Amino acid sequence: MTSRYGGIEAGGTKFNCIIASGPEDLLAEARFPTTTPEETIGQVVAFFKDHLPLVAIGIACFGPLDLNPNSQTFGNITSTPKAGWEDTPIKNWIQRELDLPVAIDTDVNAAAMAEGKWGACQGLENHVYFTIGTGVGGGAVVNGKPLHGLVHPEMGHMVLPHDLQADPFPGGCPFHKDCFEGLAAGPTINQRWGQPAETLPQDHPAWDLEATYIAKAMQTIICTFSPQRIVLGGGVMQQLHLFPIIRQKTLAFLNQYVQSPTILNQIDHYIVPPGLGSRAGMLGALALAESA
Amino acid sequence: MTSRYGGIEAGGTKFNCIIASGPEDLLAEARFPTTTPEETIGQVVAFFKDHLPLVAIGIACFGPLDLNPNSQTFGNITSTPKAGWEDTPIKNWIQRELDLPVAIDTDVNAAAMAEGKWGACQGLENHVYFTIGTGVGGGAVVNGKPLHGLVHPEMGHMVLPHDLQADPFPGGCPFHKDCFEGLAAGPTINQRWGQPAETLPQDHPAWDLEATYIAKAMQTIICTFSPQRIVLGGGVMQQLHLFPIIRQKTLAFLNQYVQSPTILNQIDHYIVPPGLGSRAGMLGALALAESA
Repeated sequence: MTSRYGGIEAGGTKFNCIIASGPEDLLAEARFPTTTPEETIGQVVAFFKDHLPLVAIGIACFGPLDLNPNSQTFGNITSTPKAGWEDTPIKNWIQRELDLPVAIDTDVNAAAMAEGKWGACQGLENHVYFTIGTGVGGGAVVNGKPLHGLVHPEMGHMVLPHDLQADPFPGGCPFHKDCFEGLAAGPTINQRWGQPAETLPQDHPAWDLEATYIAKAMQTIICTFSPQRIVLGGGVMQQLHLFPIIRQKTLAFLNQYVQSPTILNQIDHYIVPPGLGSRAGMLGALALAESA
Repeated sequence: MTSRYGGIEAGGTKFNCIIASGPEDLLAEARFPTTTPEETIGQVVAFFKDHLPLVAIGIACFGPLDLNPNSQTFGNITSTPKAGWEDTPIKNWIQRELDLPVAIDTDVNAAAMAEGKWGACQGLENHVYFTIGTGVGGGAVVNGKPLHGLVHPEMGHMVLPHDLQADPFPGGCPFHKDCFEGLAAGPTINQRWGQPAETLPQDHPAWDLEATYIAKAMQTIICTFSPQRIVLGGGVMQQLHLFPIIRQKTLAFLNQYVQSPTILNQIDHYIVPPGLGSRAGMLGALALAESA
């Protein structure tokens, strides 16, 4: 019998759970709405108890999280605005109930790991994964390992140039107004143009502006992390027509400053959609379980 | 006899060379102007030949550099605008002449390593070092190792918000106009205000604007790298009165989003001058030599 792992993609609206022995070998799955920690984690634990034995569990989790292994609250969800979930010891709770090794990381770090293991970044040691949807988040693999640092990255909140004459919308981030997330997340597109993003035609000026903001963020990411590849996922990036515009603008903004053939000659393979599609987060949990 | 190392701080105007067995045990030093590779590297090699035996040499070098150990041009200065130095195989050249192990990295990565080893970031595994002077550059240590990625960071060229009404100066970067370096490097201050930065009094509005740009860059660095500490060095940062303004603005811009006591309660110890002062680059070369 092959080794079986449990994976939890823990989000603010639902928890997706899988049992798998590999990315192509999904044995069971379940989905539970995110209500209270007691109810949701209770359902998750019951699901896994029905599928023992398992080698380990991985949790790709919404945040913010305490990822410092020397901390007393390691593996806790910390100051989340999600009602009822503040200071939830999700890792220890599941570990105690199932008596299994449990690994936890941010959803975006987990997705970055999965893209490195099975997706668009196989064989790379330095890459960045962004999700651009209801919010904007980014995870990074550096020298082959996920980056945590002091807390963990919150890449959606990097600064961007904002030309208020060209785009008078003040930005939608409750903390920073016109940070990356405030200028480019899905809800901002809806509010700026007064209609749902997915109803805007491909030739609507919304998309050129959206691509401009994303490409400016790419300039910063390339000049800071110097990644070998950047993956752009999430609901907004399902508008695949954005990719060529983002690539072209990124090259224009960099203006040949970074003299790498990987960027200058192969931009189509440098800024890419997730190789794992919408499964990046779920398979991130599996990648975490395998590393536990 | 203790182990003796050679260090080269290779800059665009001069090469500083040292012989040392540790940061507090400097045995010899020399300085050569950066003229042609033949002349300057010739002088460097002659200096070290006079001080053999040495265990290894470290080069903290201006860039851009090829830092990919699998590349045929590993250790070369690549597309530098510094006349005569393009495609200079500085690492292999010195290695061949001296028949010693030679390690090379960017001047800012080397300074970040030295600050981690002996300076303001001792005991940390994730920190960022900036130099803000004639240009702006940044190096990062992540999970205890310097970050290279595809090429190496060029952090001075990250994007920043630029309010053209408050600051009509278009920015001084020949590639990106108003990137971080274009808005905040020393020569920009001179041009924006029409007098040398060091002659501007502490209550001149130049410094509040300068601190604003640097604090915006801090927001991006904290939200991307999540460093445990940030060191700000270089000529501009010798204006120590900038530090409290930068710290206060960084807290204001983050707006309590990153809930870390290290940032919220200890900002004076979070954004700091180099513990090694102006020796960070030179001791970076020594740190590289010790790692060779």
